[in-house]
Amino acid sequence: MSEPRYTPLARSLPATVPFVGPETQERQRGAPFVARLGANESVFGPSPKAIEAMARASSDIWMYGDPENHDLRDALAEHHGTTPDNIVVGEGIDGLLGYLVRLMVGPGDTVVTSEGAYPTFNYHVAGYGGELHKVPYKDDREDPAALFAKAAEVNAKLVYLANPDNPMGSWHSGADIVAAMDALPEGTLLVLDEAYVECAPEGTAAPVSADDPRLIRMRTFSKVYGMAGARVGYAIGAPGLIAAFNKVRNHFGMNRAAQAGALAALRDQDWLATVQTRISKARTRIGEIAKDNGLVPLPSATNFVAIDCGQDGAFAKAVLESLVEQGIFVRMPFAAPQNRCIRVSCGTEDDLAAFTDALPKALAAARG
Amino acid sequence: MSEPRYTPLARSLPATVPFVGPETQERQRGAPFVARLGANESVFGPSPKAIEAMARASSDIWMYGDPENHDLRDALAEHHGTTPDNIVVGEGIDGLLGYLVRLMVGPGDTVVTSEGAYPTFNYHVAGYGGELHKVPYKDDREDPAALFAKAAEVNAKLVYLANPDNPMGSWHSGADIVAAMDALPEGTLLVLDEAYVECAPEGTAAPVSADDPRLIRMRTFSKVYGMAGARVGYAIGAPGLIAAFNKVRNHFGMNRAAQAGALAALRDQDWLATVQTRISKARTRIGEIAKDNGLVPLPSATNFVAIDCGQDGAFAKAVLESLVEQGIFVRMPFAAPQNRCIRVSCGTEDDLAAFTDALPKALAAARG
Repeated sequence: MSEPRYTPLARSLPATVPFVGPETQERQRGAPFVARLGANESVFGPSPKAIEAMARASSDIWMYGDPENHDLRDALAEHHGTTPDNIVVGEGIDGLLGYLVRLMVGPGDTVVTSEGAYPTFNYHVAGYGGELHKVPYKDDREDPAALFAKAAEVNAKLVYLANPDNPMGSWHSGADIVAAMDALPEGTLLVLDEAYVECAPEGTAAPVSADDPRLIRMRTFSKVYGMAGARVGYAIGAPGLIAAFNKVRNHFGMNRAAQAGALAALRDQDWLATVQTRISKARTRIGEIAKDNGLVPLPSATNFVAIDCGQDGAFAKAVLESLVEQGIFVRMPFAAPQNRCIRVSCGTEDDLAAFTDALPKALAAARG
Repeated sequence: MSEPRYTPLARSLPATVPFVGPETQERQRGAPFVARLGANESVFGPSPKAIEAMARASSDIWMYGDPENHDLRDALAEHHGTTPDNIVVGEGIDGLLGYLVRLMVGPGDTVVTSEGAYPTFNYHVAGYGGELHKVPYKDDREDPAALFAKAAEVNAKLVYLANPDNPMGSWHSGADIVAAMDALPEGTLLVLDEAYVECAPEGTAAPVSADDPRLIRMRTFSKVYGMAGARVGYAIGAPGLIAAFNKVRNHFGMNRAAQAGALAALRDQDWLATVQTRISKARTRIGEIAKDNGLVPLPSATNFVAIDCGQDGAFAKAVLESLVEQGIFVRMPFAAPQNRCIRVSCGTEDDLAAFTDALPKALAAARG
């Protein structure tokens, strides 16, 4: 046969990658990064108890993981004061967003997000033939009122809102999100991505019932819990919607050691508190470094800081490229005017010392 | 909103699960299984070097895995004498089958498989709206000639063939598969699932070029490599088809420790050889136990044995249910007449001793 008979949709899709991984960049530059501050991973790592649980589970890896994720869902339900029927566990928020989009979006269906928001969500929408409508940020924050108004205008099936936001680090209070939801149109499901909420100020998580049929919330062990490489995310929503994931998910898709690690991580809230403190300190330090170089750090409720480089996207890109050349892995927003910033994840003292050394040179190179 | 606006396809899908996991059964019976012989996992476990690699990688789990799976694809390419462009790594064969079906099958597209073959493939086909046509087994073996003739008749986009077969354990020589492929219709892609090939007789793997555009081969670390819980599978195919997976896959979906474990497992072919020997001995032992009870073990090229219980599906089901009650987790084929059998995975000596004790009681109960 000459070429496989792809679906018309598959044929139309570009072979793009939402993000180029740091390992790819390391192979290209022929050297490892000195500081890995570009993917909003948690350099502070997971709870030692989670590491121990995963190491121990490695010996049991000959067994498939429990396809129901029973114990983890039970513990998450207790943690959130919901029932297990409100919770689906999946291969990271990325995996869960894919399943959700698959359930809801077909060719021509409309979806709303912010210009410059999470590209992997957009990747899924495009991948199922959805039509994306984008709303600009307002003062470097996602704009719930504009998002929901656009959703009404285009009859969107889904509207995506990250709170706190990536890539800007900005946030709204949960109460403000809930108030704004009064304007959420009937027939539009809110996808509230709360990936960073564990390091946001008290009151940032949306104070809604898990049974509220208007939204589904996404949470993850990849960020403050420090387990990005384990691929464990979960969604909280009304039981009917949660049950629908069983129609399409990869039932045996979860890594068994990751299940055990997430359970241990959830049970060690003391560790989470120490990480929250370290993230807070690192955010402050990144802000100082920015200011020492005449730049403006944006307020952040996440484990990274967007630094306004004070000029346009081309300038910020030049700064970023010099940082990468110097072995500092960072990323930057995709869309103007947010792309005047670079995005720096919280690092260890050594990481931030390396960033301190590299930033003046990067600015000089970009200006030069 | 009252109910989410699912796609018509999603709305039409049942909330079924391809398999009920053993943990679910354990929760139902209120006790753990004595012997876990139902999921064709490898009780012999992975290479100790793989366990060590996964345990070590647990400390690095704060980092996302390499989305290109570069090192593992490189090693697999060397192992198979192909290029990395011939190989895509994914979340088990289950995950890869899902991506493949998504690329190829839309509502109304036709797909061919055997009656009673791997249900998770069927789950994916149904999940994307495909229309399944099934061909019966012939002498308890998949029937390539009939499969390919049916594919021609219904203009199938995909035809699924497992060699060796699950759930029967039967097999064809790779040369016979290749000869049969002369009748594979233009425009039909053969999905050759070789999940069990590492414990099959020499010559079972299809002797085809990785660039052959007529087929894609599926391999896994879940069976003889003993890493079912890690979720690492891979497909070998022509570069164009392999590249197409990048349009739809979850790029950051792989567990970082699993990537490291698979690499270490692949490099320890000595361990694989010891597992092959143990599987061979366990198959022989299962056969003896069957014969001691007046039953007929079917020849097997896999890590399990289908035992013909000598009567119909209802009888085999009664045997199975008694075994499960006695703490022996086994499964059985879904379709007649193969459902006259129970399917018993290779176990340790202790596992098979427990099976030896339980089988006579199960037969008595079923006859009783």
